[in-house]
Amino acid sequence: MFDSGLGGLTVLAELVRALPNERFIYFGDTARVPYGAKSARIVQRYSDEVSRFLLGHDIKLLVIACNTATAHAESLLRKELSIPVLGVIQPGVDALLAGTQNRRVGVLATRSTIKSGAYERRILEREPSARVYNKACALFVPLVEEGWIDKRVTGLVIQEYLSELVREEVDTVVLGCTHYPLLKKSIREQFPDLQLIDSSEETARATSRLLEESGIRSQTPAGGVRIFLTDITDQMNHLETLLAGLAVSSVEEVQL
Amino acid sequence: MFDSGLGGLTVLAELVRALPNERFIYFGDTARVPYGAKSARIVQRYSDEVSRFLLGHDIKLLVIACNTATAHAESLLRKELSIPVLGVIQPGVDALLAGTQNRRVGVLATRSTIKSGAYERRILEREPSARVYNKACALFVPLVEEGWIDKRVTGLVIQEYLSELVREEVDTVVLGCTHYPLLKKSIREQFPDLQLIDSSEETARATSRLLEESGIRSQTPAGGVRIFLTDITDQMNHLETLLAGLAVSSVEEVQL
Repeated sequence: MFDSGLGGLTVLAELVRALPNERFIYFGDTARVPYGAKSARIVQRYSDEVSRFLLGHDIKLLVIACNTATAHAESLLRKELSIPVLGVIQPGVDALLAGTQNRRVGVLATRSTIKSGAYERRILEREPSARVYNKACALFVPLVEEGWIDKRVTGLVIQEYLSELVREEVDTVVLGCTHYPLLKKSIREQFPDLQLIDSSEETARATSRLLEESGIRSQTPAGGVRIFLTDITDQMNHLETLLAGLAVSSVEEVQL
Repeated sequence: MFDSGLGGLTVLAELVRALPNERFIYFGDTARVPYGAKSARIVQRYSDEVSRFLLGHDIKLLVIACNTATAHAESLLRKELSIPVLGVIQPGVDALLAGTQNRRVGVLATRSTIKSGAYERRILEREPSARVYNKACALFVPLVEEGWIDKRVTGLVIQEYLSELVREEVDTVVLGCTHYPLLKKSIREQFPDLQLIDSSEETARATSRLLEESGIRSQTPAGGVRIFLTDITDQMNHLETLLAGLAVSSVEEVQL
């Protein structure tokens, strides 16, 4: 699996929990993070480079644990690679549509993911009568990275982004960015009636199904996580809690 | 001049105003922005690549319009290049020490700039008796990029970051990130007695002096701005106001 940075570790955590028999390689392109504000073309080039690296490590399935890379590069990688490829968007879309009662649904994501239209397009393909409310939440990632998970400021920012959706009677929203699950509790406190879809959880479920269907699910206990990063810095404290209990065997720096 | 992205346009705006006889090349490494959370080594490599590109365009002076790049790569570039090199840190430090009455000074910057110690070291070199209060303000850049310049949330974030410094009787702070000048008005509203040093303004003044001293200041009216970016996206709206009136003759995408 790969992500532009470390946000995808929320997906890794869910995968490790769901699939104790598998071994994981997590690639974080931390030297070029974030992909969110970059053009489709650049994101495709970076995703392609990262996938080639991972193929060199003999992976049997690729999870794109990054919404921006999924939006811009999923179909390209699916065409290019001979192994199954799974992005984080479709599992979230499926759960969103399964969860909504009134088909008024919200998409919370970075500016770039929203702009790509990837969520809206897939939602309307499956459910043309849905009303989709998009909201780019540019401050959520820095709030999480600052560790301001339950400050007054965070509540205000959540209000700022979500009030309009709730006024429009949206009943279910998908957290379309891997950092956002860390704000789930705060969002629930502000809007207890809103149903939240966590794409990390849904992607883990979908990966499990895909391994099964492709007949490549490991039957013997294995486990283990290798992490490759394009830049190792000491500013990764806020992710330590995510890494705790993941049995990471190595963290290595590589240059693409 | 170069910056990791577009924040350095605040410096460009001041330079164009101060030096109407010069021509400017602005290089924004937007495909790899931001440098702020990356390691010193990676920032040095990127700064080196960008400088080589600019030298190929026959520049006579290099302004590093990025605090992170100045912190990590200024001395390296000064050693390597045969033209004068000026970073954004020293001009801010000089103005900070000229401005303070009680030598209790604050540095507002990104996490990486603070961590580099570049401001604190230079302040104490010039004024060993100064008390330096560092504050990493990770949410300021995304607030500016969101265009939330004078929202209630912004006031709260400013309070969150600055209250402690003001309690410690800091009388002058330097805005040690090129995006921060856009929050000057909001900071003044929250803390009217705090003296703010704008490194973009100070860098323009220092550049003017350095051109003069090196005897390479243009005497005939010229002007004109060329912009090179490593990624052109359509998410640059918030900077259009900065670009207005700058007589930009071209914006080109290049790959390093």
